[in-house]
Amino acid sequence: MIEATNTLGSNYDRLMEKGKKIMVLESIVSIILWDMETKMPPKGINLRSQQLAFLKQIEHKTTTDPEIGTLLEKIKGHSDYDALNELQKRNVYLIKKKYDEMTKLPEELVVETARQRVITVDAWKKAKAAKDFFMFKPELEKLVDLKKEAAEILMKVKGTATPYDALIDIFEPHMTAEMITRIFDELKKGLVSIIKKCETTPKQPDTSILKRKVPVDIQREIANSLARFIEYDVESKEAGGRIDETEHPFTTGYYDDVRITTHYYENNFTSSLFSTLHEGGHATYDQNINPEWMYQLIGDGCSYGFHESQSRFIENFVGRSREFWTHYLPKLKKLTGDIFSDVDLDTFVHAINQVKPSKIRIEADEVTYGLHIIIRFEIERELITGKITVADLPRIWNQKYKKYLDVNIENDSEGVMQDTHWAEGYFGYFPSYALGNIYSGQILAALEKDIPDWNVQIAKGNFHNVKQWLIENVHQYGKLYSAADLIKKIAGEEINVKHYLDYLNEKYSKLYGYQR
Amino acid sequence: MIEATNTLGSNYDRLMEKGKKIMVLESIVSIILWDMETKMPPKGINLRSQQLAFLKQIEHKTTTDPEIGTLLEKIKGHSDYDALNELQKRNVYLIKKKYDEMTKLPEELVVETARQRVITVDAWKKAKAAKDFFMFKPELEKLVDLKKEAAEILMKVKGTATPYDALIDIFEPHMTAEMITRIFDELKKGLVSIIKKCETTPKQPDTSILKRKVPVDIQREIANSLARFIEYDVESKEAGGRIDETEHPFTTGYYDDVRITTHYYENNFTSSLFSTLHEGGHATYDQNINPEWMYQLIGDGCSYGFHESQSRFIENFVGRSREFWTHYLPKLKKLTGDIFSDVDLDTFVHAINQVKPSKIRIEADEVTYGLHIIIRFEIERELITGKITVADLPRIWNQKYKKYLDVNIENDSEGVMQDTHWAEGYFGYFPSYALGNIYSGQILAALEKDIPDWNVQIAKGNFHNVKQWLIENVHQYGKLYSAADLIKKIAGEEINVKHYLDYLNEKYSKLYGYQR
Repeated sequence: MIEATNTLGSNYDRLMEKGKKIMVLESIVSIILWDMETKMPPKGINLRSQQLAFLKQIEHKTTTDPEIGTLLEKIKGHSDYDALNELQKRNVYLIKKKYDEMTKLPEELVVETARQRVITVDAWKKAKAAKDFFMFKPELEKLVDLKKEAAEILMKVKGTATPYDALIDIFEPHMTAEMITRIFDELKKGLVSIIKKCETTPKQPDTSILKRKVPVDIQREIANSLARFIEYDVESKEAGGRIDETEHPFTTGYYDDVRITTHYYENNFTSSLFSTLHEGGHATYDQNINPEWMYQLIGDGCSYGFHESQSRFIENFVGRSREFWTHYLPKLKKLTGDIFSDVDLDTFVHAINQVKPSKIRIEADEVTYGLHIIIRFEIERELITGKITVADLPRIWNQKYKKYLDVNIENDSEGVMQDTHWAEGYFGYFPSYALGNIYSGQILAALEKDIPDWNVQIAKGNFHNVKQWLIENVHQYGKLYSAADLIKKIAGEEINVKHYLDYLNEKYSKLYGYQR
Repeated sequence: MIEATNTLGSNYDRLMEKGKKIMVLESIVSIILWDMETKMPPKGINLRSQQLAFLKQIEHKTTTDPEIGTLLEKIKGHSDYDALNELQKRNVYLIKKKYDEMTKLPEELVVETARQRVITVDAWKKAKAAKDFFMFKPELEKLVDLKKEAAEILMKVKGTATPYDALIDIFEPHMTAEMITRIFDELKKGLVSIIKKCETTPKQPDTSILKRKVPVDIQREIANSLARFIEYDVESKEAGGRIDETEHPFTTGYYDDVRITTHYYENNFTSSLFSTLHEGGHATYDQNINPEWMYQLIGDGCSYGFHESQSRFIENFVGRSREFWTHYLPKLKKLTGDIFSDVDLDTFVHAINQVKPSKIRIEADEVTYGLHIIIRFEIERELITGKITVADLPRIWNQKYKKYLDVNIENDSEGVMQDTHWAEGYFGYFPSYALGNIYSGQILAALEKDIPDWNVQIAKGNFHNVKQWLIENVHQYGKLYSAADLIKKIAGEEINVKHYLDYLNEKYSKLYGYQR
């Protein structure tokens, strides 16, 4: 480790001070965005867009500070550069990447995009409530144009093959549309085969129990008890988390202040239950990155895909497992009085794992979920390339849903307007959901080698060892490695769809009683 | 009005862009502080102190932007300067004041003060809970030293006679400790005389009714109904406000997003009731400044004293009046079931206006309240001057409470640690509470001339005309005038204690049945 006593060391320390500003500023933005979604009075929307534009401007100034450029040159050009350790080199790499990208993006474009984003989200909310895509369209068009402009610039800086690849790289560094297409084709084949088997076997779940009314207050207690189970502290005097309510659940925060949201539907209690586990998976990841790296660029989630691997691991691999419900069903029965007193474990576990093509991504089952993502990926790839326009979205969306999932979309609120991502300008984000599933299959295989009885432990209500394993093997590393390197470190191989499909086949052949 | 077509106009417009940044940034800080008090997970405190220090640094950079200095020189030195209208000149004056003060305060001092503030507030909370002043003392000492350093610098910039005057000027521009001493001496005499009369008359209130248990849920409904009464919208789809819970109620926000907090004590329902009215008075002021001035420096409350005049007007002049309860007691009875069914108007109104020396400022009655403020003023004046030290505070505090209010302070949590102000570095703030009362007496006299039956309207449940009068005569003007000029405009005279004492004498002689 290079000390601050020589020029390389002191330049590195100075660079880290600049990096700290970036991280602190991002944590401020996350509070302001969280507040906008959860607490802001509705009239405050225009003021909020001014605040976010201002913060974006500050962010742009902070990441493009010319002193960062000077320091980077001095550090990279120093004869002792190789004496920097792995952590230090990675911090330098990450700050350089940000600096290079942001210096090439005009401040005006960044600020204008931030402003347009707030307006587009607002239009999306209103249009969704009114089931009227044409209220959303003009604002989305403006945002897409701004994102395309940014993508063209970023393509050159990053040296990606296409503008869309430059956007993917924001969420999953080094991943490309070509690679995703190949991975998703294999995934699609596997998923379609499982769906067919599940649909045609006589053993079908009884899901009527999931529609039983569970009062919202009880659902809140359930959410709190799940948070305790996954050791996401929202209650103690040392708590570093919160649970709030939004229509669309999300996680935001940084180390000691990481917040999740969920929604409570009286007639669909598992919606809040699984979204709490899902977001809790994101939150515990953020909370357990190496604490020594707080305020450094490596002290952050590896990639969106990796983040998603953690949320889906907790939601599905743990939360929808027979083992978890062996432990939790008696607890649920206790919390809900006599609502589920007649329900047995097998019925319940099959019900929460029903495979059934549907319209809404966030309510989709584990198997059909991947197809929802593939649809979005295929559409946004064409949209950013310019092969289709915003005006085409509803038609193409509905066609693909018919083709891949055989469902009829009756209005755009349950179709192309169901997600917030595009309204927020997050193009290139969706693929990471499915990549997360694939990573989590590989992570499961690695976990099973180290803790063969992990699921027996879960059945006994003990999540602690699994969580510690995740912290040690995934969370703590933050951004020290790229996603490609981290999955190799964990699984000993590159991204590989096989393990995830194996997991699904194993699980669903048992549930539905079909031959693998 | 000068147009942007000449250089004066375009320089002015450019200066206003700079001013807008300042106002937007302040609105961001207010959200971050609100979140810290209401929603932040406890573990987030250190991260939050980093965030606030960062924002303070940005605020310092934004207000001391050298371009502001250049623009001010060009504008003030322009031959057509007098062609600027009153609004424009005031904006220039306000931005110049901020710029001059901030350029003289070293950025390090500002950032260090922001960081220390968060730590001191945290120490205060813990010390207050533990009833242990010595946990608080070392952090308060550091903060006081920082504030003294700033006060010395500001004294020179502002040309005030003493460092303490420079701090008072932050909250009540142009006011001095000497003027306040003179005003408070007259106020003290008047208050002591009223207190004596109330204490010695045989007609005493029965306050036992105020201790009746009111469930927190009902208190929330009461708070919402009071918000509706004063037209502070927290419920509709166009709402620009919120009500949350904190131990110490406060108001924060800007135009379309103004939030109040209260606290609900089951055995003391009037505590939330009156704090909701009080904070609602602040909030409706902030919401009703001329909307055209949003993002301009004149678009802000006139002074802390004027702000307090509005909160106390709603809390006391309206909220503790016989007329308001003529309207609201039946409503309260309806909301609370049979809790108050046996209580008559006279009993209730006398109970909520009991005059009784006590330990806690925020629970004090309208008459003794002024003495709580005078004590704080006298102590902080000596503290900043250096005549006493932080270590002396508990002893001197307890002596003064014995002397002025004849109460014995048994621990520092109900004594010198009861308020958050000093922990937040707000020295010079307390006097504005009493100045607010004095202004409100003058405002009442002016209102009575324009709407002689204002209290009859209140008794009928109609607050609208009073509110419109307040908007027209107080709120809308924002910072266009200094407090001294605004009170002259409203009352036709300088600050004058007489009207407030008249109001108190009139009210309490009736309530307690004594001869004026």
